[in-house]
Amino acid sequence: MGKKVLIVGGVAGGASVAARVRRLDESAEIIMFEKGPHVSFSNCSLPYHLSGIVEDSEKLVLMSPDIFKSRYNIEARVQQEVIQINRDKKTITVKDLISDKTYEEGYDKLVLSPGASPIRPNLEGIDNSNVFTVRNVVDIENINSYIKQKGMKDIAVIGGGFIGVEVAENLKLANYNVTLVEFANQVMAPFDYDMAQILHKEMVDHGVELILDDGLAKISDGYITTNSGRKIDAQAVVLAIGVRPETNLAKEAGLEIGETGAIKVDSNYLTSDRDIYAVGDAIEVYHRLLQKQTRLALAGPAQKQARVAADHMHGIPTRNIGVIGSSSIHLFDLNAASTGLNARTAEQAGMMYDYVYLMPGDKVGLMPDSNPMHFKLVYEYPTGRILGAQAIGKGNVDKRIDVIATMITMNGTLEDLKDLELTYSPMLGTAKDVVNHAALVGLNLLKGRYKEVKVSQVRELVESNAFIIDAREQGEYNTGHFKNAVNIPLSEFRQRLDEIPKDQPVYIHCRSGQRSYNMVMALQNLGYENVYNISGSYLGVNLYEYFNDLVTGRERIVTEYNFK
Amino acid sequence: MGKKVLIVGGVAGGASVAARVRRLDESAEIIMFEKGPHVSFSNCSLPYHLSGIVEDSEKLVLMSPDIFKSRYNIEARVQQEVIQINRDKKTITVKDLISDKTYEEGYDKLVLSPGASPIRPNLEGIDNSNVFTVRNVVDIENINSYIKQKGMKDIAVIGGGFIGVEVAENLKLANYNVTLVEFANQVMAPFDYDMAQILHKEMVDHGVELILDDGLAKISDGYITTNSGRKIDAQAVVLAIGVRPETNLAKEAGLEIGETGAIKVDSNYLTSDRDIYAVGDAIEVYHRLLQKQTRLALAGPAQKQARVAADHMHGIPTRNIGVIGSSSIHLFDLNAASTGLNARTAEQAGMMYDYVYLMPGDKVGLMPDSNPMHFKLVYEYPTGRILGAQAIGKGNVDKRIDVIATMITMNGTLEDLKDLELTYSPMLGTAKDVVNHAALVGLNLLKGRYKEVKVSQVRELVESNAFIIDAREQGEYNTGHFKNAVNIPLSEFRQRLDEIPKDQPVYIHCRSGQRSYNMVMALQNLGYENVYNISGSYLGVNLYEYFNDLVTGRERIVTEYNFK
Repeated sequence: MGKKVLIVGGVAGGASVAARVRRLDESAEIIMFEKGPHVSFSNCSLPYHLSGIVEDSEKLVLMSPDIFKSRYNIEARVQQEVIQINRDKKTITVKDLISDKTYEEGYDKLVLSPGASPIRPNLEGIDNSNVFTVRNVVDIENINSYIKQKGMKDIAVIGGGFIGVEVAENLKLANYNVTLVEFANQVMAPFDYDMAQILHKEMVDHGVELILDDGLAKISDGYITTNSGRKIDAQAVVLAIGVRPETNLAKEAGLEIGETGAIKVDSNYLTSDRDIYAVGDAIEVYHRLLQKQTRLALAGPAQKQARVAADHMHGIPTRNIGVIGSSSIHLFDLNAASTGLNARTAEQAGMMYDYVYLMPGDKVGLMPDSNPMHFKLVYEYPTGRILGAQAIGKGNVDKRIDVIATMITMNGTLEDLKDLELTYSPMLGTAKDVVNHAALVGLNLLKGRYKEVKVSQVRELVESNAFIIDAREQGEYNTGHFKNAVNIPLSEFRQRLDEIPKDQPVYIHCRSGQRSYNMVMALQNLGYENVYNISGSYLGVNLYEYFNDLVTGRERIVTEYNFK
Repeated sequence: MGKKVLIVGGVAGGASVAARVRRLDESAEIIMFEKGPHVSFSNCSLPYHLSGIVEDSEKLVLMSPDIFKSRYNIEARVQQEVIQINRDKKTITVKDLISDKTYEEGYDKLVLSPGASPIRPNLEGIDNSNVFTVRNVVDIENINSYIKQKGMKDIAVIGGGFIGVEVAENLKLANYNVTLVEFANQVMAPFDYDMAQILHKEMVDHGVELILDDGLAKISDGYITTNSGRKIDAQAVVLAIGVRPETNLAKEAGLEIGETGAIKVDSNYLTSDRDIYAVGDAIEVYHRLLQKQTRLALAGPAQKQARVAADHMHGIPTRNIGVIGSSSIHLFDLNAASTGLNARTAEQAGMMYDYVYLMPGDKVGLMPDSNPMHFKLVYEYPTGRILGAQAIGKGNVDKRIDVIATMITMNGTLEDLKDLELTYSPMLGTAKDVVNHAALVGLNLLKGRYKEVKVSQVRELVESNAFIIDAREQGEYNTGHFKNAVNIPLSEFRQRLDEIPKDQPVYIHCRSGQRSYNMVMALQNLGYENVYNISGSYLGVNLYEYFNDLVTGRERIVTEYNFK
């Protein structure tokens, strides 16, 4: 008889440990305990049930206890809550949620994969029957049947992280009036504010009511009230303000808890007890860029941790390279992806960094469905080490972010990135891929070959009446321009140098930055010392300002928005 | 007055050098000489004019001489053929193809970017007016207007490389009867034969007549004859059997030519003359995996070379990391991409290598448009260093290949690849990305944790009546199976061990390899010593055999093909 392995939690991490242990040891006795009615469901696909993209909620369940048993000889016990770990006896106490009886089960090795639970703030109306959270298949079925039965019209989603945004999107696709309330000034924390503005616009353009810088204060019958006093119609409320690692079991068993509040593990995902492993959303992991412990609730890392834990249990050498945080989201017509640090997290960590923002086409311009891709690359200053990237667009932006994730993992620099030889065909990309392009721009900045101002600094330039050159052709200028910009096309500036002052800073932009870059370089060559490229250019600034102007009603800095 | 830079050739490489030189030196005099009527056109997009995807051929031209002049102060002289380099005088002799007059032009620095010209074999009918090659916009316009005017029905495309395949596809999309004739036993040399079979099937399924292992012998009125004597209706013939670097000018000037027959350059893309650079399809480059000089006619590398040449000319430090060869193609409903070495090139180079082939979903299975992705990873044995990869599928296969290209460039191993933390959302991928998955399989093989047979070895196993277990469920088995396979589902094998012999090799497959892997591991644990997983599994073997069976009419080894 082999060893007895018990696993607490039967979703991503737990199910992966179980399957791996079976492959390594046919004789092991493996039992998985799951509080809910399902093991191994597709966590990340839950929101898609609300729009009907996944019409049949049963499909969200990837494997039944029967299949675990017949294929893998793994016992998956559902609706069984593990309520205590008895480390001295090497047993766990389990409560059968159907019979309400408790029993003990002994282990040789125990694996904790209890996940994280949605945070429910303590406020008026939070326990109403129309207030939901999203953690499992039952939750999403409950939301779906509730809103369908009552002939619901207005739904409020609280929280603009992955789950909140995806729930809002899918509810909108199902034609509800959806209001998303987010406490921060942006949705989707993996993105910087400038990139998030593109997501804000996408949501607003698709009819989601977006309320930022505001929080949920009170839930009443038929409406909610925000911290700022705003009342919003809502016959149902979905809470998605964050998750908290499930640590009660570990804490009560005296297992060490880390400073982040999650279970502390060693490099093999062993807890402070040599016979107890922990994986998934309940643990803290090492962030290799921030060089400290962090929490990261993602499916991919959970699966990797599961494998390491199972391997270590069986004497197979493992390694742990930490995490960098890579994720993506599909949002209406856009894809958005990010990896590593963004400028905000780099700033908060006190790191030396700079970034470039550019928006080339996602494929050859004359191919069908060619669209601008918005790409931001964050790198360490002065080393040029790649720290992170964000990309948003209609095309395959995740491809570019996966390349950056690979570069970060392999300790790549801008110099490495510029030399990458990537695939290209006109339907799938451009000969100079955006990642190569971004590296070249980054190197130019790093080496001081030219200077730029960021998209967030342009309003101040316009309002202070700085000397701004619009390097586009006149026809383009006429479709919308910065209010004080002087139109000197790249094609004319050599004949109009007398219009460009040498005794004050000159800021140059075009549509997406390519032409202005050429003009900046030429002027520098001609002896201009104070020339700046406007990062993001007209297209980027429009996207940056649009949503804010919509919300605040403040005066636009452009005569017309232009998103093409 | 700055230096005078002359550039021979105004497409990818040449135009990039010109633009870069301008940015580095506003005072330089820059003249580009182009034999054809256009500079800076989208080479790779030419075939798309034939289907009308790029309806207006003028759009293929990215920039006119006027724009080069006005925006960049670059003189682009079209229809000017450079016929001689006078190195002693530092001049070139140019023939104006309109006036037929010749003149000399002096240079400080000369850049050769003459490209490569389509090979025209010397055979009967080759000079007929209905025989075309594809190099530039005029060529594609000629083909298009010829086939449109004559009410053409049947077109033969000779050669199954990028251009041949794309031309065949676009002609088929325009509803012509298209026959593609390829001398080798497969199209698209960057792919191994097993992967190319998927492309063959795609072409055949879309109505392209595909003739492999055969060459063009003779072109007659209304038909062509192949080497094997086959006659094929063809009122027009497109030749795409390869290109030859344009080296005449360099040779005649006494510049060194490499062993590959292309212009030899140093690490800065300087030829053997310190004032003459060469870039693009006419030069040979260093292949960092094969560790020797090679030719690589791709747009991306040409652009990088152009930049290095321009930088070196201006004293900016450069580096040269060699090439690995990354490319992609869109073919009917498929995308296909490859990077680095395939098994054939590794074998030819006498390298130690192995590979894995797997076909997971390209996104979460319950999402719309989820499809299998075929992925082959080639690595060095016994080091696990990543050497190359190929991927084919309806989804974003190029994303995975770009990740592998990055790994190769950064000298990554299977160990590194398995740990990569990539983006994931259900619409865009799977939590365990195929590249992680392939690395895990590769490590299993590398470490001898289990054995497998390749997809190409299965026919022999079936024909020799080896003991093959089909680990799928009975319902799946009934939709088609290997003729001699015993159906022992993973879900039943533990109860049916007595049916599995211990004294002979046992080969196991399922649909795509996941279930059979689990059974292989279990049987090994149970003391079976001679168990093999069938790489590619039922799905892969079907794809591998289908096209050959179609062509040869030989007996199938499966009762029914099953491609799902």
